[in-house]
Amino acid sequence: MAKLVFGHKNPDTDTICSAVVYADLKGKLGEDVEARRLGEVNQETQYALNYFNVEAPALLEKVEDGTEVVLVDHNEFQQSADNIEAAKIVEVIDHHRISNFETKEPLYFRAEPVGCTATILNKMYKENNVERSKEVAGLLLSAIISDSLLLKSPTCTEEDVAAARELAEIAGVDLETYGLEMLKAGADLSEKSVSDLLTMDAKEFSMGDAKVEIAQVNTVDLSEIYEKQDEIEAEINQIIESKSLDLFLFVVTDILNNDSEVLALGRGQANVATGFNVELQNNRALLKGVVSRKKQIVTTLTDEYVK
Amino acid sequence: MAKLVFGHKNPDTDTICSAVVYADLKGKLGEDVEARRLGEVNQETQYALNYFNVEAPALLEKVEDGTEVVLVDHNEFQQSADNIEAAKIVEVIDHHRISNFETKEPLYFRAEPVGCTATILNKMYKENNVERSKEVAGLLLSAIISDSLLLKSPTCTEEDVAAARELAEIAGVDLETYGLEMLKAGADLSEKSVSDLLTMDAKEFSMGDAKVEIAQVNTVDLSEIYEKQDEIEAEINQIIESKSLDLFLFVVTDILNNDSEVLALGRGQANVATGFNVELQNNRALLKGVVSRKKQIVTTLTDEYVK
Repeated sequence: MAKLVFGHKNPDTDTICSAVVYADLKGKLGEDVEARRLGEVNQETQYALNYFNVEAPALLEKVEDGTEVVLVDHNEFQQSADNIEAAKIVEVIDHHRISNFETKEPLYFRAEPVGCTATILNKMYKENNVERSKEVAGLLLSAIISDSLLLKSPTCTEEDVAAARELAEIAGVDLETYGLEMLKAGADLSEKSVSDLLTMDAKEFSMGDAKVEIAQVNTVDLSEIYEKQDEIEAEINQIIESKSLDLFLFVVTDILNNDSEVLALGRGQANVATGFNVELQNNRALLKGVVSRKKQIVTTLTDEYVK
Repeated sequence: MAKLVFGHKNPDTDTICSAVVYADLKGKLGEDVEARRLGEVNQETQYALNYFNVEAPALLEKVEDGTEVVLVDHNEFQQSADNIEAAKIVEVIDHHRISNFETKEPLYFRAEPVGCTATILNKMYKENNVERSKEVAGLLLSAIISDSLLLKSPTCTEEDVAAARELAEIAGVDLETYGLEMLKAGADLSEKSVSDLLTMDAKEFSMGDAKVEIAQVNTVDLSEIYEKQDEIEAEINQIIESKSLDLFLFVVTDILNNDSEVLALGRGQANVATGFNVELQNNRALLKGVVSRKKQIVTTLTDEYVK
């Protein structure tokens, strides 16, 4: 039976592209591996898939008991398939912190503190002397652009930049032009319901004893989103109650100015004010220069929760 | 300030040699890294260090807050420095299951399902085109011999065998002759107190909600050890009480026949009988062909605790 490779719930471009590309690499190395996704493909990712003419992987509803799986772009179980404990995790390729992850047996685990899983996969093609097709290069490039906000996020390392330049060449696109078009496709929120906005890129984290959910959307127009603040708050309050969250942080990131305007609700609201040294007004605050959930938000909030 | 690299508590040959060797590799790559140990050097490891004329690393009493550390040959916090949570873990090189490990930030984590950390380090020398000195090769070889019981353990992979052969050549020793001498040096238990036997290679594991400690010693004479069974049991019962263990399993491994005679005490004793399908007599059972704590004992017991 084929091994399955997939990224996290609420898939983003790195998660989808890394799953597709790693299945390609494994196939070329003679292994039987198929890519899957744990949720809907977002507009940004769909733009990249269309551009390079690649099909999205099939949806995985449930992992069968004992299935051998490869995780990319995540390791925390609450971000993985619902019944991930039933699977046999044989491999992980990731670039996030390690938390709420465990296995019964030794496995192949490769995490590196770079900006994007795709950057590690790019290296693995080279280590294994496997050629990157135009499509593979295009998907890896799209993932790096997405995770690094076109190389501007503080999570972006020199390795990511070098990989992006090299991949743009193989993919035959201009990095800046293609990158901005792709990000804009993802930042078009005009068709999104409030529920979409809150779930399209939401991740849950354990911080101390608390459960914190952080949803992030990219936009070119902050005010457009917050026109619906009342409706957003009502929906967030329901999520907080149903999941017993201590905090729900909605992060709206302005991809042109590289700032984020956040909306914080829940008992843990004060941790946002203290952590970022801001005053919340109308439950909101502008976080200047903050664009990275992983490197700027999760770390700051975790410090507040465990100090 | 130098980063510190160390292996687990109750250091064995892989843990000590991997720390020493990885500090050497890092140094040759221009990083400031020093090896440390978390406990006494055992006789087997001392034999290897003496043979290749290498000093043991200094003892680490306590990790200072915020010290950058590299873990080798372990990841589970209860096997690491007592206040490991105070350190900033920047890197892990390991070959065990992943459990009770977490970081706040992304890191470099490399685990591979091979028999020995030294096998991964050997690969890293080659990946980085760094020459292995006779001493480095000797220590890496000693670690592989130790973890694989001279290539006979089920944890031993083809990669470990190939590495051992290659390293024996560089180290200028005959693999079989050197290996058996080194193992025998470690299996000489004549000078050991009961307390030594129970702590010299003991590791604690979380299984479900239970705490299980598994101590292992190598011998060429099973009966010699069990002459002191009464004294051993009294001491184990004290350990169980002071650490609130569900089970203490004492594993005496016969390195000539590759079997283990185990002694099980604690509430969880029945899990040993069920897991290995044996009957305990006088709290003991012979486990034919069982020599690997990691691959044959921890996995079997974890299944019993979480089923």
